[in-house]
Amino acid sequence: MEEQVEGVGRAFVDHYYYLFDNDRSSLSSLYHSNSMLTFEGHKVQGVDEISRKLNLLPFDQCQHAISTIDSQPSSFTGGIVVFVSGSLKLPGEEHQLRFSQMFHLVPSSEGSFFVQNDIFRLNYG
Amino acid sequence: MEEQVEGVGRAFVDHYYYLFDNDRSSLSSLYHSNSMLTFEGHKVQGVDEISRKLNLLPFDQCQHAISTIDSQPSSFTGGIVVFVSGSLKLPGEEHQLRFSQMFHLVPSSEGSFFVQNDIFRLNYG
Repeated sequence: MEEQVEGVGRAFVDHYYYLFDNDRSSLSSLYHSNSMLTFEGHKVQGVDEISRKLNLLPFDQCQHAISTIDSQPSSFTGGIVVFVSGSLKLPGEEHQLRFSQMFHLVPSSEGSFFVQNDIFRLNYG
Repeated sequence: MEEQVEGVGRAFVDHYYYLFDNDRSSLSSLYHSNSMLTFEGHKVQGVDEISRKLNLLPFDQCQHAISTIDSQPSSFTGGIVVFVSGSLKLPGEEHQLRFSQMFHLVPSSEGSFFVQNDIFRLNYG
């Protein structure tokens, strides 16, 4: 169980940031109608709003590098919380930006997981 | 609903870090037998192990300053995910340490919330 949770967390993180960096518009497939995203304090809900928010971020290309992944079973619902730290490189920027992000993954009826909660913050200072 | 979730998140964060900085041993009252804590990658479960981990951290006194609090309803279980960023001052240390932490709060049978998930990471770099 423990290894499975860690494995799901790692696989999700690999998949999520690969899509973010290479095919951002397809991230929408990971969210459902009740999903929520808080990006730098700006909260949006549902596939359409989340997709719009992600696609309208003020940079076209970026490259995530992951430093840590911590995963835990979230409760009796079969969910998993995943906490990520890493850095983000934007085109033309010399310095990387440090970030932290959490996901709450919930089992879908298709036997996979979708993102119920997504909270992103850059780490300043 | 939205304001209530934000309010619970803020009240919890105030309470949690006040206890951490002033009466750390009483933090145990916020966890249940299935609660999990991952502190800098070290995972422990249950009130006793979590309490031991927190009480044996290699500093007696510390002072948290909170920068951001983001809260969302976690799912149909009535839970709330809370994402915190801030800094931590240890005695004798000139520089503050930046940290990020997430909590998954789950309603208790007493009408309050307990911490189901707790993941803490210092932000390096």
